[in-house]
Amino acid sequence: MTDFTRRSLLSGTAASAMGALASFRLSPVWAAAPTAGKQAPGFYRYKIGDIEVTVVTDGVIRGKLLDNFVTNVPTEEVKAALAAAHLDRNIFSNTFTPIIVNTGDKIVLIDTGVGEAGFKQTNGTAGQFMTNLAAAGMKAEDIDTVIISHYHGDHVNGLLKADNALAFPNAEILVPAVEHQYWMDDGEMSRAPKGRIEGLFQNNRRVFSGEVLKRLRAYEWNKEVVPGITAIGTPGHTPGHSSHIVSSGTAMVYVQADVTHVPYLFVRNPGWHAFYDQDPIMAEATRRKVYDMLSTENMIVQGFHNPFPAHAYVERTATGYREVPVNWSATL
Amino acid sequence: MTDFTRRSLLSGTAASAMGALASFRLSPVWAAAPTAGKQAPGFYRYKIGDIEVTVVTDGVIRGKLLDNFVTNVPTEEVKAALAAAHLDRNIFSNTFTPIIVNTGDKIVLIDTGVGEAGFKQTNGTAGQFMTNLAAAGMKAEDIDTVIISHYHGDHVNGLLKADNALAFPNAEILVPAVEHQYWMDDGEMSRAPKGRIEGLFQNNRRVFSGEVLKRLRAYEWNKEVVPGITAIGTPGHTPGHSSHIVSSGTAMVYVQADVTHVPYLFVRNPGWHAFYDQDPIMAEATRRKVYDMLSTENMIVQGFHNPFPAHAYVERTATGYREVPVNWSATL
Repeated sequence: MTDFTRRSLLSGTAASAMGALASFRLSPVWAAAPTAGKQAPGFYRYKIGDIEVTVVTDGVIRGKLLDNFVTNVPTEEVKAALAAAHLDRNIFSNTFTPIIVNTGDKIVLIDTGVGEAGFKQTNGTAGQFMTNLAAAGMKAEDIDTVIISHYHGDHVNGLLKADNALAFPNAEILVPAVEHQYWMDDGEMSRAPKGRIEGLFQNNRRVFSGEVLKRLRAYEWNKEVVPGITAIGTPGHTPGHSSHIVSSGTAMVYVQADVTHVPYLFVRNPGWHAFYDQDPIMAEATRRKVYDMLSTENMIVQGFHNPFPAHAYVERTATGYREVPVNWSATL
Repeated sequence: MTDFTRRSLLSGTAASAMGALASFRLSPVWAAAPTAGKQAPGFYRYKIGDIEVTVVTDGVIRGKLLDNFVTNVPTEEVKAALAAAHLDRNIFSNTFTPIIVNTGDKIVLIDTGVGEAGFKQTNGTAGQFMTNLAAAGMKAEDIDTVIISHYHGDHVNGLLKADNALAFPNAEILVPAVEHQYWMDDGEMSRAPKGRIEGLFQNNRRVFSGEVLKRLRAYEWNKEVVPGITAIGTPGHTPGHSSHIVSSGTAMVYVQADVTHVPYLFVRNPGWHAFYDQDPIMAEATRRKVYDMLSTENMIVQGFHNPFPAHAYVERTATGYREVPVNWSATL
């Protein structure tokens, strides 16, 4: 075998005869090959017992890594963790991964993505949910139930279209009782910092009004929200932040929402506090408790901010945990 | 947050009110929700400089783990490695991942998958390449060039349809000169063990005849096979086994073919000898040399037997290497 390095390959030392081969042609004239120029549709399926889950990506928002993104470690440590994950140390990629749960009786969406407004703001890198839903053979009208994990824009804004019409016209909308109560409480809003009022309280009062409010039903923790889907309280990220267990027979998956944000930062470093964890101490306690359970029980997690299809095992490491993506399956 | 384990969740201790909620219905009668019942099409795109790569899965063949699958370690160690990778310790899943390289001038396929015959033998778990190619918006007639890495059935059988017609009617077929010479050599065949004669020599003489032979061109190592794709000799798995570097500008990907088989066994344990490594000592030396380079150079590998989309970084570990799947990208 030839000795080679990236440098020798690029300089042509290894590939010594580049361009020297005469071109072999079956026909005298070849048209240039047009490229597709776009990614494959982002959906993926798996079974949980009799239940069929379809993971549908909403895309990504990429931006410069903010200095205060992780509040309790120096930015250089965050950059080093990105580099260790083979990523650009200066860029943060925020991916969004709603799922469809077909219980056989109802078609349930868990969290919405950023919606049409997000699509416009990002020139289509995010807000891809409806396109990918269509690729998966489903329509917005097919959704019977939307379950919301918590009231951040990437999880709720997709409830509305750009013209404020219902994005899922036939769906009931199920929300955590604790979460809804918090964001609708005028006293809480009056005591909140300005950024949270403008960034979250006002947005939530815009979204959860009108037609959305008419479809709303609040759910409690430790109960089935719909048959096959049980809500678990995992507060800290927000006051009413909720995870969901999808189960059928002895099979289950833990749909974590934002117990961790991107795994290569926050699963590997569970003590790191993302600036958008509203109560970072409680969020960390929740995170450690959930990840202890996932790793001990060898339970698969479906993570809203994990790389698509966002479906991973969790292993303990010396300093925290590591996500291990479930192998893609060519069959159901 | 509720204390919970898999056991308490399943027994209903945590989900104490399962089934107790009254069902909320927007309309009096609901039809059961029909499930899709099949996996998403398995294709995925990325750019290498100006070149567009489309990964197209051919599917999977699953079977009982054979006792002699790894020839130089006890089967219990192999089973333990499968379990450590969160897989069934008694099942071996062999996945096949051809790629399409669109150089802007030519549409090039690297390796074929198991073909129509394989589709029939597996009831469609494998031989999915043509279906997924169609999902990716391409036709067999669009392929200008097929590059073969080595003469094993999962890499060459897709050259022919079940009726022995050319599967890619407009393509030239480029094969490693060393590999072709070996399998067509009557002296080599006469000295080979019975299993290799019946399993490989005879199959290769069936495939590489007639119309295939008319389209054939042999290529040498360390030269461009087509502009943008350079062949590298990586013998051991077979005498003429070849890898390919796809490069454009400063970007490149290492298309390894079978330098390793499934990464969770053979990347993590580079000293393990799969029974189908024809010269296991040479195959191991090749494997260590390539993986030293990939990890040192932080170069992405495209692995024919890696889990789809089969695109991974390589890191050194105490005992070998570890594959780190590249994060799925929602954009090109």
